[in-house]
Amino acid sequence: MIDSKDLRTRIGRAMAEAKLDALVAMSPENVLYSSGTSIITQRMIPDRLALVLWGHDDAQTFIVCTIEEPQARAESWISDIRGYVEFAESPIATLASAIKERGFARGRIGIEMRYLVANYYRELVERLPEAELVAADGLFDRVRMIKTPAEIELIGQAFTATDRVIRSAFEASHVGTTEKQIVEMLEQGLKQAGADSVAFTVLATGSNALMAHPAPSDLAIAPGYVLRTDFGGFFKSYLSDVARTAIAAPVSARQRKSYESLVAIHERVIAAMKPGVRACDLFHLCKAGFEEFGLAFGSPHIGHSIGLSVHEYPMISSQTTEPLQPGMLICIEPVHRGEDGIYHTEDLVLVTEGEPKVLSSSANWSKLLVLQ
Amino acid sequence: MIDSKDLRTRIGRAMAEAKLDALVAMSPENVLYSSGTSIITQRMIPDRLALVLWGHDDAQTFIVCTIEEPQARAESWISDIRGYVEFAESPIATLASAIKERGFARGRIGIEMRYLVANYYRELVERLPEAELVAADGLFDRVRMIKTPAEIELIGQAFTATDRVIRSAFEASHVGTTEKQIVEMLEQGLKQAGADSVAFTVLATGSNALMAHPAPSDLAIAPGYVLRTDFGGFFKSYLSDVARTAIAAPVSARQRKSYESLVAIHERVIAAMKPGVRACDLFHLCKAGFEEFGLAFGSPHIGHSIGLSVHEYPMISSQTTEPLQPGMLICIEPVHRGEDGIYHTEDLVLVTEGEPKVLSSSANWSKLLVLQ
Repeated sequence: MIDSKDLRTRIGRAMAEAKLDALVAMSPENVLYSSGTSIITQRMIPDRLALVLWGHDDAQTFIVCTIEEPQARAESWISDIRGYVEFAESPIATLASAIKERGFARGRIGIEMRYLVANYYRELVERLPEAELVAADGLFDRVRMIKTPAEIELIGQAFTATDRVIRSAFEASHVGTTEKQIVEMLEQGLKQAGADSVAFTVLATGSNALMAHPAPSDLAIAPGYVLRTDFGGFFKSYLSDVARTAIAAPVSARQRKSYESLVAIHERVIAAMKPGVRACDLFHLCKAGFEEFGLAFGSPHIGHSIGLSVHEYPMISSQTTEPLQPGMLICIEPVHRGEDGIYHTEDLVLVTEGEPKVLSSSANWSKLLVLQ
Repeated sequence: MIDSKDLRTRIGRAMAEAKLDALVAMSPENVLYSSGTSIITQRMIPDRLALVLWGHDDAQTFIVCTIEEPQARAESWISDIRGYVEFAESPIATLASAIKERGFARGRIGIEMRYLVANYYRELVERLPEAELVAADGLFDRVRMIKTPAEIELIGQAFTATDRVIRSAFEASHVGTTEKQIVEMLEQGLKQAGADSVAFTVLATGSNALMAHPAPSDLAIAPGYVLRTDFGGFFKSYLSDVARTAIAAPVSARQRKSYESLVAIHERVIAAMKPGVRACDLFHLCKAGFEEFGLAFGSPHIGHSIGLSVHEYPMISSQTTEPLQPGMLICIEPVHRGEDGIYHTEDLVLVTEGEPKVLSSSANWSKLLVLQ
């Protein structure tokens, strides 16, 4: 989704700004972004490190365990690939050797402090006593923050497909349908819609709908129940993440008002998403909306960017002063914790030079979907 | 799968042996094991820590972000639950406060050095300058190494179901069937067999079968192709992990010999799995088998325990001196890298006082499955 030339420009510029001699990608997301290769065992077996070493000389070294080496050689655009034998050799030793060999042993080296675990970190400090190790998590965050046109197209299609699957599963649900049955429709639907896998499925009704992330159960929809999903999949390593709420008839006046207020706040926040507006401004606008409509507000964030991770920088929270820029993809997801369940709506918004564009909506969710 | 009384006995004994004043579970697996609650966002949003603090006084504190607090209160057997507001409060600050309040600020505290990331580790060191922080990863490994009867039953059923799904998908495959079509059969089959989700799907044929963990493609089975899968799902938070190989007719004499040699080595290793035999002994027995049968051997490990993680301690590698004990569940998975693909077979074995028991086989895989 990002070609190696564009990537080298982005990383090179960010390294120069941060005055780094070297930079090491360590997390599955940044290794995939840096190498063009998804090493799936990075997620299942986190001890088995895969690493991409970037030098300020615009050369790259890709370090993987020998088990994954054939795949790295077949798929990555990086030609300097080095394997370590798992258990017999430490990946950190291989990294330290490469750093020394390339002349960065006394350099300023950016690493992923939010990903590298303490025992590997302590080993790296020991093996590179003269290096200055600094946190470069934010560097990767900001490089990935502006999406390429290909990323925008792929992620936008993933969100629209996810929304369509939710709409169709909700329209097929009624009093008596169980959580697990709806999950089945969601997950099968998502695979048929082109997802490589389901990333997460929150689907809850009744008392379960009061929890943020419960496991789906055999509980069935009953009259007046809130039905909520927060659902996403992997599409070529990129994520979708859509939340929707419906209510089973009869819908009380209070329920309808809660839903309509939430949607009104949601749309107001989206309309404000112009370049230069800061993430924290959107958060406060959302919070003010909750106060105006008389809804309790208790969310630490009301949205987030998304891409190779589900929560990417910037988070839309009161702490984030990052201004919006064209090319950002932001999920907006206000949440109302009612007495009868969580009301939740989440859309993907593309920030442009002009008006913000919603890329996730396959149907008119402004109108409450009432299940029979 | 483990009741709180059994758990407290196990953890209490291990903490006393390691002379710990306090112990902190940090990884999704150990937090689930310690609390009885699966906080699914721990996997998707690793910054959002969930932590269980064990004291030598047999009291526990469960720390979660406020978003997950209702679920923790509803599901966990731990009563002292404390929420932190994400972004506004640091989970490490909440942990350090709890440690101080409970009188462990100058104590010897076990943490998960293989899980806690460097920036949180450095914050913890700063907030607890008088504590002695030690790696307790191995403690959890050894506590979880001996499975309960309920765990053995659940995991055994998960493996048998997974094997049955593979057998059925392979029997439905033939020349012309694509990798993606087989993946579809595998993944749908696993969900129907009771898996909560698919954990990983390696399915490859032809040239893709030379890579350890390629993504499934539109490549179709052709005459003489090796077909290999390494496949598993989550069943109530526990994992299955089964590998199988078949070949499309016509099968060459060399292919048949490779497969039959691999199976003979596999069965020889399993037959040796008696209490007291060390993990490294099994590794060397396997390696000797490869030499005897004239197959190249290049695996850093030939198996692993399994449970809440896919690779649990002990790994069956040349470095592991842990002796087998009754109640261990071990995957044995010799791998032969042939010129025409990876030959791979993987079974789950229960170590007992007497003979080892294979818990994964739903069919006779000793005989090569030939696809038409």
